Amino acid sequence: MNTMHAIVKMEPGIGAVYTERPVPAAGEGEVLVKVLNVSICGSDLHLYNWDKWSASRVQTPRIMGHELAGEIVEVGKGVQSFKVGDYVSTETHIYCGHCYACRHGRTHVCQNLQILGFDRDGVFAEYVALPERVVWKNDPAVPREWASIQEPLGNAVDTALAEDPAGKTVLVTGCGPVGLLAVGVLRAAGATTIFATDINEYRLNLALKMGASFVLNPKKVDVIGYVLEATHGAGVEILLEMSGNQQALRDGLRCVTPGGAAALLGIFPREEVSFNLNDDVILKGIRVHGITGRHIFSTWYKSAQLLASGRLNLDPVITHRFPVADFEKGIQLMREGICGKVVLKVAD
Amino acid sequence: MNTMHAIVKMEPGIGAVYTERPVPAAGEGEVLVKVLNVSICGSDLHLYNWDKWSASRVQTPRIMGHELAGEIVEVGKGVQSFKVGDYVSTETHIYCGHCYACRHGRTHVCQNLQILGFDRDGVFAEYVALPERVVWKNDPAVPREWASIQEPLGNAVDTALAEDPAGKTVLVTGCGPVGLLAVGVLRAAGATTIFATDINEYRLNLALKMGASFVLNPKKVDVIGYVLEATHGAGVEILLEMSGNQQALRDGLRCVTPGGAAALLGIFPREEVSFNLNDDVILKGIRVHGITGRHIFSTWYKSAQLLASGRLNLDPVITHRFPVADFEKGIQLMREGICGKVVLKVAD
Amino acid sequence: MNTMHAIVKMEPGIGAVYTERPVPAAGEGEVLVKVLNVSICGSDLHLYNWDKWSASRVQTPRIMGHELAGEIVEVGKGVQSFKVGDYVSTETHIYCGHCYACRHGRTHVCQNLQILGFDRDGVFAEYVALPERVVWKNDPAVPREWASIQEPLGNAVDTALAEDPAGKTVLVTGCGPVGLLAVGVLRAAGATTIFATDINEYRLNLALKMGASFVLNPKKVDVIGYVLEATHGAGVEILLEMSGNQQALRDGLRCVTPGGAAALLGIFPREEVSFNLNDDVILKGIRVHGITGRHIFSTWYKSAQLLASGRLNLDPVITHRFPVADFEKGIQLMREGICGKVVLKVAD
Amino acid sequence: MNTMHAIVKMEPGIGAVYTERPVPAAGEGEVLVKVLNVSICGSDLHLYNWDKWSASRVQTPRIMGHELAGEIVEVGKGVQSFKVGDYVSTETHIYCGHCYACRHGRTHVCQNLQILGFDRDGVFAEYVALPERVVWKNDPAVPREWASIQEPLGNAVDTALAEDPAGKTVLVTGCGPVGLLAVGVLRAAGATTIFATDINEYRLNLALKMGASFVLNPKKVDVIGYVLEATHGAGVEILLEMSGNQQALRDGLRCVTPGGAAALLGIFPREEVSFNLNDDVILKGIRVHGITGRHIFSTWYKSAQLLASGRLNLDPVITHRFPVADFEKGIQLMREGICGKVVLKVAD
Repeated sequence: MNTMHAIVKMEPGIGAVYTERPVPAAGEGEVLVKVLNVSICGSDLHLYNWDKWSASRVQTPRIMGHELAGEIVEVGKGVQSFKVGDYVSTETHIYCGHCYACRHGRTHVCQNLQILGFDRDGVFAEYVALPERVVWKNDPAVPREWASIQEPLGNAVDTALAEDPAGKTVLVTGCGPVGLLAVGVLRAAGATTIFATDINEYRLNLALKMGASFVLNPKKVDVIGYVLEATHGAGVEILLEMSGNQQALRDGLRCVTPGGAAALLGIFPREEVSFNLNDDVILKGIRVHGITGRHIFSTWYKSAQLLASGRLNLDPVITHRFPVADFEKGIQLMREGICGKVVLKVAD
Repeated sequence: MNTMHAIVKMEPGIGAVYTERPVPAAGEGEVLVKVLNVSICGSDLHLYNWDKWSASRVQTPRIMGHELAGEIVEVGKGVQSFKVGDYVSTETHIYCGHCYACRHGRTHVCQNLQILGFDRDGVFAEYVALPERVVWKNDPAVPREWASIQEPLGNAVDTALAEDPAGKTVLVTGCGPVGLLAVGVLRAAGATTIFATDINEYRLNLALKMGASFVLNPKKVDVIGYVLEATHGAGVEILLEMSGNQQALRDGLRCVTPGGAAALLGIFPREEVSFNLNDDVILKGIRVHGITGRHIFSTWYKSAQLLASGRLNLDPVITHRFPVADFEKGIQLMREGICGKVVLKVAD
Repeated sequence: MNTMHAIVKMEPGIGAVYTERPVPAAGEGEVLVKVLNVSICGSDLHLYNWDKWSASRVQTPRIMGHELAGEIVEVGKGVQSFKVGDYVSTETHIYCGHCYACRHGRTHVCQNLQILGFDRDGVFAEYVALPERVVWKNDPAVPREWASIQEPLGNAVDTALAEDPAGKTVLVTGCGPVGLLAVGVLRAAGATTIFATDINEYRLNLALKMGASFVLNPKKVDVIGYVLEATHGAGVEILLEMSGNQQALRDGLRCVTPGGAAALLGIFPREEVSFNLNDDVILKGIRVHGITGRHIFSTWYKSAQLLASGRLNLDPVITHRFPVADFEKGIQLMREGICGKVVLKVAD
Repeated sequence: MNTMHAIVKMEPGIGAVYTERPVPAAGEGEVLVKVLNVSICGSDLHLYNWDKWSASRVQTPRIMGHELAGEIVEVGKGVQSFKVGDYVSTETHIYCGHCYACRHGRTHVCQNLQILGFDRDGVFAEYVALPERVVWKNDPAVPREWASIQEPLGNAVDTALAEDPAGKTVLVTGCGPVGLLAVGVLRAAGATTIFATDINEYRLNLALKMGASFVLNPKKVDVIGYVLEATHGAGVEILLEMSGNQQALRDGLRCVTPGGAAALLGIFPREEVSFNLNDDVILKGIRVHGITGRHIFSTWYKSAQLLASGRLNLDPVITHRFPVADFEKGIQLMREGICGKVVLKVAD
């Protein structure tokens, strides 16, 4: 049996190991992908840290990772739409296709969701087997590093385009990697004034590079006052909440104009979130969109085209690159927050 | 100067007085309406009780009330679309027409809103002067009592139709008068299974009369368990939150199917509301609509046509009728919650 | 090899034969269904008549039919969501799942569509093999005859609910079976005034039974004048074009209020259709929805719930019932237009 | 009585005259605007040419023109939201505010519409009186020439944003001034591939400058074949029909992907338009939006912000500038089609 290198969560507790695992085979309806590049997601950090959610869901040993660019090297029985040599990425929410949600076309909230790198072996490895129905064929013109980031870019696209931002003022609370990508999508999609907030100056600087009009550190600036003054008292048409910070949500909703909208992506590190639902949602008559995952594959088409057309440049957000064996360096940077997106090279 | 009878909030503190006031005149752009019927809103109760919100907003003396059916008896200078004898009701949110919200066509969330019966003299009187731009001409076929309830019916219409309910399962949390009206609208608009909750058995009984499929008292029944079982684990497509009760909101959102929606109308008696935003909104990818007032006048057209066509019968929800002089009886019933809508007759 | 009875298009030219065919087997990912009831679609008539479209598409011999209620008697390899004994109907548009349209979730306009009873053997037979992904599990409470009509009901649901009709005036041009079903859906979904037109008095009478407010025969009544007068000059909010008649389209669009909408389902017996696009679509700023097939399966959920809840009664539209061997009687009635929906019984 | 210079349609027949007229006064609810810049619309050309539509609608003498940038010099009685010195433009569809359409918030399709420069004296003059409710206050940062083009830009914005174009392929048929503006809006709003067609090479060249990805001359290129090949057989997600040419409409609709959409703005020089409604709208299940005027003022907010933010550069589309007295030169250029937008300077 052939073996390959992989980053594996070996057992409960903090940490992960760069070690060897058997090369998987392409089962029926699956393709085997040779991994070229991967990128690290915040959720990988949760798994590495073995937080409560990971502990309750993940069985070890488990190969980590879900964001990749790769090449198909083997095609399983019954696969119809891919061939060896195809340059691909993957949707990481493996939907069942049979549940109430899937039969409504809401595959992104499938009730039997399997998440790659958590519920089955992931992509931080030399090879990974993937079900045909979640594989995405890349345009050869899209660079490998960008291709591996399409999955989180899809989150950003669904948040930024939950309401058409063209010709509108938008506030983005939280400039982690997905928030930064959302700033870029907003800019590409014609948002005219983009306010971005974070308490991390390094990331505010990246937000400027991605196209933010104004960056605000709530530790230094009164965000509500600033936004209301800059909008002549109107507030913003749209809020994108990308931080998972309760105070950011409160301030953000306060900034939304009556009749406006908010899209919420950030997950809050608490069971319940508390805010002024009366004044900031109900009495203002706003729409709120909960965003999770990405629409499969309508969102991918948009993301891929934004990249292939050159409308969206991901380079500013890719701040660090390592060989896969050095993944611990990336994990450490993400813990400290002094990075944008961290990309790992698996093969040349 | 002629005088008329009116229910007047004379001074800060609990109570109101049935007394005499000068008959108003129709100013420029206004009509003078002879009041036939009025109905009591929960917000009238707040003003009667002189709660914090009323105390901060209302200047006494103030004629109360905003829900009416009446007849135009005088037309002011410049009025173009009404004449003496027209049978009318009124939108109670008097918008400015000039602010950022109004210029976007969002007159229902005007930033300079004047509320009838709070910011200017209201309709619990023999006569009231109203700006032409908020007056609604009734179909003569609509009974006076129904006509006076169109304003809260508009709230119910905007909540119930925030998402098209036809062919869908819906949960209504809270069966106060607007909740009951929403049940009726849902039934008329093709919702196929309507769950309604309240802790008041009298009102649950009215909900059945308005078309609820199942009525549930959370003090006796596990609402989440019941709804999930009845929907084979799917949950409801739409939640209408009409109670302003935090636990009802929590349970209601828990019942919404992934990819579904919620419309929130009930105002919560607390500054902040706390619930599981992660699991019940974001990770389920649902849409939430804050509902306030009514769209002016697209909602009125729908409400009026539902009544004129006989699709919606308001009789079950009108549980009590009094002469206007006995308004205290209505106030008392509403305090106790053993009523649906209370209608007062002002003129024969 | 076992044989079964079936209605078969044996060769090019008019007609079809009630004859014997081998019983099919459930292939991989398929179920074998014992057919209980079927109903005849207008497109079956086209195939029977061997019109130009049929001649260009269908290979003979071909078992006809696509609308059914049946019971699963065999489950093929790999089938996950059905078992023997399930009471089922079927979506008749067998989508590929791999094309650009399918990957956008638009399976109803799949670019490699296989249509049951045209591109593969259909349901006018004792048994039919169906791919799992298009099979629909019925609620046991829904009568067999209603269950077999869910497929065309889905067309009606998508047309009638293309825009939420609650509280609105609607014009339905064309009262063939799908038009009649659309009238029923509108009525159930809260349309307040429903105008229905046809030149067939028999069908206008059925439209009244399905809930039309006014039925108009354009040979006798000036439809535009009637509708405009009845709506005080406003016109209707929504047009449903169900006739495929050019003059009906022209008159129907003329009746739509500025800013309103139209949903077009009827197919026109001509290559090009000519109408006043300037005045009746562009300068009125209306929305037009082309409707084809049904959303798989979000539409089915709505249709099924309308039936199971009793909101929609299909009995008035089912005007004729025959044993399957007498299918020629049904074909003849449909040619003459003196029928609603014709149902055939295949098994007891 | 003071007089001013103005371009006046003096009497029926071809032509117009640069002559003197009395300076108007600001009536009640009106402002008097000193005109700085104006731009010429295609409809001005129709009036100049005295086509059938003009002859049926316009009473002479009539001051022409409706696109302007100016400054308020007098404020009439009752005006609340403007003051002397304000830098303004104007919506040219003067809505009544009282009709069925207006009461639905659809003021852009008011049933009693008065069009500036046609139904009342226009802006090709030193001064013009305008009702407060249609006046738009400009951001001082927006250049005068750009400000005068905001009205047709609003048409382009409503067409280009009828469906959110971000991340999508779009075909624009027709590169007259509004088509060119639409290309610019699409580009600013994130459309990723923009095909633009015209038979005028001068204008195709301008389309490239405004951001088109590919420009196609149907006299030289097979548009359908080109678009289908470039989109790998999928077709475009959105068509913007800006030409009013029947063949362009036919070809354009043929290029739309199943489940896609079209927005139609161009007016056709014929009473009826003929195309394949079956195959290109109904059986593809697409949405079609008729576009007329602009939403008042939600569209203006978007247009103004696109300009003020620098997201949209109008310079390439402004190809000619003349003093107002030389307006005949502009008319001549527009007749020949060898221009983009023609701007006239009225005051320094």
